[in-house]
Amino acid sequence: MIKMPYLLFLGDAVDQLAVKVGQGIKDWRSEQSIGQLRLAECNADLGLPDLTLEQGLEKGAKTLVISVANRGGLLSYAWKEVLIDALNQGYDLASGLHNRLSDDSDLVTVANQNDRQLHDVRVPSVKFPIANGKKRSGKRVLGVGTDCSIGKMYTGLALHKEMNSRGMKSTFRSTGQTGILISGDGIPLDAIVADFMSGAVEWLTPSNDDDHWDIIEGQGSLFHVSYSGVTLALIHGGQPDALILCHEPTRQTMRGLPDYHLPSLKDLRSTALSLARIANPDCQVIGISVNTKHLEDNQYESYLNQIEMKLELPTVDPFRQGAERLVDVLQAMT
Amino acid sequence: MIKMPYLLFLGDAVDQLAVKVGQGIKDWRSEQSIGQLRLAECNADLGLPDLTLEQGLEKGAKTLVISVANRGGLLSYAWKEVLIDALNQGYDLASGLHNRLSDDSDLVTVANQNDRQLHDVRVPSVKFPIANGKKRSGKRVLGVGTDCSIGKMYTGLALHKEMNSRGMKSTFRSTGQTGILISGDGIPLDAIVADFMSGAVEWLTPSNDDDHWDIIEGQGSLFHVSYSGVTLALIHGGQPDALILCHEPTRQTMRGLPDYHLPSLKDLRSTALSLARIANPDCQVIGISVNTKHLEDNQYESYLNQIEMKLELPTVDPFRQGAERLVDVLQAMT
Repeated sequence: MIKMPYLLFLGDAVDQLAVKVGQGIKDWRSEQSIGQLRLAECNADLGLPDLTLEQGLEKGAKTLVISVANRGGLLSYAWKEVLIDALNQGYDLASGLHNRLSDDSDLVTVANQNDRQLHDVRVPSVKFPIANGKKRSGKRVLGVGTDCSIGKMYTGLALHKEMNSRGMKSTFRSTGQTGILISGDGIPLDAIVADFMSGAVEWLTPSNDDDHWDIIEGQGSLFHVSYSGVTLALIHGGQPDALILCHEPTRQTMRGLPDYHLPSLKDLRSTALSLARIANPDCQVIGISVNTKHLEDNQYESYLNQIEMKLELPTVDPFRQGAERLVDVLQAMT
Repeated sequence: MIKMPYLLFLGDAVDQLAVKVGQGIKDWRSEQSIGQLRLAECNADLGLPDLTLEQGLEKGAKTLVISVANRGGLLSYAWKEVLIDALNQGYDLASGLHNRLSDDSDLVTVANQNDRQLHDVRVPSVKFPIANGKKRSGKRVLGVGTDCSIGKMYTGLALHKEMNSRGMKSTFRSTGQTGILISGDGIPLDAIVADFMSGAVEWLTPSNDDDHWDIIEGQGSLFHVSYSGVTLALIHGGQPDALILCHEPTRQTMRGLPDYHLPSLKDLRSTALSLARIANPDCQVIGISVNTKHLEDNQYESYLNQIEMKLELPTVDPFRQGAERLVDVLQAMT
């Protein structure tokens, strides 16, 4: 577990998109996001108080989270002085970058001197088993997308928030770097060796109370040829009882694949459901989550209504509207 | 590339099943399999000449291949004296075991002293890219199974043999340890990190002449919940033009999953084809390969006829009958 609360390090972010990880943490753990720490060259702003390392400590921060991605996802030389200062002052560090904090001998030395932790959330920390496919108790819900980066994590977090507010038993099960930083633990599924992907998802979502919901963070898309294998491992390892279709209506082509168009929601429904029923014959598609961020206020409701009539499934933007209508269906299943 | 010909080391194999890797090499590279080397306790026999290390060298062997798997897939202490002798006498070593030759400091030292190679075929040797999904020239065929370990590699090797005998341009593209030992190179797909599976398959099967066939070794099954993600990465990275359905009619439940039954060939056809067409809209299922090893001589032909009538696709046991009828279809596609 990564210790909270966090001070979010935005470094020398070139633009707001570069602090997407920080935005996710602030959106879903605002109470654990004490402030932001920016270098002089930083062009991003999360709207949090600008704090020095000393001020962050005074307000109770335990971990400095690298909440920025630069080109290539590498650790930047420009950040290093701040990171070493943070360790010396008593912070742990957490990072979802491709290269590891623990591969930097200076950081390792200073962390050891101060008895501090370096959390590389992209690095699997467990030796996962091969999946055994055995039926587990408890309920599981998973978001599947018409594309990558389409709102699956936000959908899951909105479900979790709503279940919490109703006093339902639920756990958000992170499968990616931002999700892990938000929830404090999870598995970095895209960094796990192929043979163990499905087993890692089984490990993440063990047997539980019959009325407990695991909300599994979705990854990739069955229709995205770069990552579809990860998605299928998630479906078969997670053996979900419920699927939620996730979509972004203004996306023209698949992310990073300019020659590929998004599937229709109907195609996604039939493909995902037939594959999910291999692992769980009772699986159902229970609703649709649309990321309407790029639609105007006067457009998005009519768009959601259209989809709802066409697919005959509850259709919401859970970030804009909350996940009440989706949780209504899930609650009725337990 | 692993240097051939091979001397096959069967060690102290407990039974014939333990030398499955060696059987595959002998079945498909008999001309490169100079002989077998067995310890006194060995209970397996590939029917090759029993040779000492010295005799193997005299006959031209270049690599001693660990062709036996013991419990756990680990390097056995009982073998080590032979392996060190082999390096000292001038052999390279090749292994598909889970633990690596290159993690054994004694073997590494002796290999370096003698300027010999240690080939761990389960270990990816390349930094693979993320898949880009771009259409590549040339043709590709892939076997997809109703289960794992059902004859996909043998089907591919039989296609390759038949294409070679017709003078067609083709390459067998190995994706697993035995295939790599048989063909001398390839990628160990199940050992590759999730994000790079599909990209590794693209790397393995690059653009080629329009009349060249890549015969891609299949892995896992879309219906096997432990490995289905690997299979889908293979389908989307390989963007096959042709699929061959692979089946074993006496299998009762999925390998290692006693609660799961095999899908019908019709279900496999529709599921695999709809997923394959995401990456290659022209993909077709062109035939069926049945492993009839466990059917009697007077049974297997009527079984194949039944399947052929039901599915309306050429249906053969390529190991028993050759792959002529499957290659007829593929040849007509180029």
